[in-house]
Amino acid sequence: MKILIVYAHPEPKSMNAAMFHEAVEALEAAGHEVKTTDLYAMRFNPVSGRHNFTTTLDPQFFKQQLEEVHATKQNGFVPELDAEQQKVEWCDLMIWQFPMWWFGVPAILKGWVDRVFAMGRIYGGGHIYETGVFNGKKALLSLTTGGKEADYLKNGFNGDLLSMLKPLHRGIFQFTGFSVLHPQVVYGPARMSLAERTEALAGWHSRLQEVFNETPIEVGTY
Amino acid sequence: MKILIVYAHPEPKSMNAAMFHEAVEALEAAGHEVKTTDLYAMRFNPVSGRHNFTTTLDPQFFKQQLEEVHATKQNGFVPELDAEQQKVEWCDLMIWQFPMWWFGVPAILKGWVDRVFAMGRIYGGGHIYETGVFNGKKALLSLTTGGKEADYLKNGFNGDLLSMLKPLHRGIFQFTGFSVLHPQVVYGPARMSLAERTEALAGWHSRLQEVFNETPIEVGTY
Repeated sequence: MKILIVYAHPEPKSMNAAMFHEAVEALEAAGHEVKTTDLYAMRFNPVSGRHNFTTTLDPQFFKQQLEEVHATKQNGFVPELDAEQQKVEWCDLMIWQFPMWWFGVPAILKGWVDRVFAMGRIYGGGHIYETGVFNGKKALLSLTTGGKEADYLKNGFNGDLLSMLKPLHRGIFQFTGFSVLHPQVVYGPARMSLAERTEALAGWHSRLQEVFNETPIEVGTY
Repeated sequence: MKILIVYAHPEPKSMNAAMFHEAVEALEAAGHEVKTTDLYAMRFNPVSGRHNFTTTLDPQFFKQQLEEVHATKQNGFVPELDAEQQKVEWCDLMIWQFPMWWFGVPAILKGWVDRVFAMGRIYGGGHIYETGVFNGKKALLSLTTGGKEADYLKNGFNGDLLSMLKPLHRGIFQFTGFSVLHPQVVYGPARMSLAERTEALAGWHSRLQEVFNETPIEVGTY
């Protein structure tokens, strides 16, 4: 199968980097084809605007979605966005590897969505949710947290992790047609021993060998 | 009172721009002091990394939170972040004016949080939630949506808007001690008539004249 891994962490020696490389190895060893997007290494610009496009629909008033629909028809996305769109269109499974910052993704990853997931090409015209463009594809969040697992339970002081991830699971993945696999969460790697980190990486490796046999989770319409 | 408005939209003729300027006018006319952060105009860089700091704790391994705690002690934030931190520390009420993109804030605003809300200076050391550094301050999301109001209700196809905003309300505002005022939402301004937009702006103006008499909303620990 074909897997795209989108990775967002500034430190090459981080647990996130280790999980990113572990995933590439595990998936390739299992015979899959892997493409990657290393946002910090690419110095990806997450700010969305007119520079997304080589085409212009209306020079007097910038309405991004209308420019996106126009660019979809005219092949008017700048090459770095077109390349990312092609990777998403190509894959059977998309994995995001990131540290949870402020209960969401780092800005460099949010901006990858703001710019790459364009109306017309990626969604719209009635093609959302059950009829989404990416119907048949799967998506999986692989993340690290600052705190320990108990902090992210329903009665933990941060509340339930899955609820916090719903804007990503429901609002981005399911909105564009992806089925959602259970997130891979490593809680508080900064406080783990080397042995614990090694075990977490082995667990991730092992899960990925059978990831295409997994059943998608229910996200709900909250 | 003192109000900071953080504004994120690329188009100066947008409804968001109109709401931003309406808020400045309404609040100043009511005798308040207003400071602003116009992220697109500032060309704010939302990518967090070593460039946040003039100081370095560990040149071999970049762990952002530890660098933040170090920078807090050494006055080691770059001037553009220090200036933003001072504005947040100064205000009694913080308003974010933005278009909802992918059920969250535009990347340029997410990165403002990733970089400005630093451990040590803005949170941490037990100072979170009820004991947060910004206890006594209020925060308010003012946003536009793409779709109509019915799409953002509990049984609407996107689900309940307040639930989607919880990572912002709970995970950023309450986490750092802010009380949360009810969001100001303009649904689908792109499909509004001029008269409807004028009415929406007048409603926002009117609300702001009494905003300091409002009671914060419950967000819940979801």
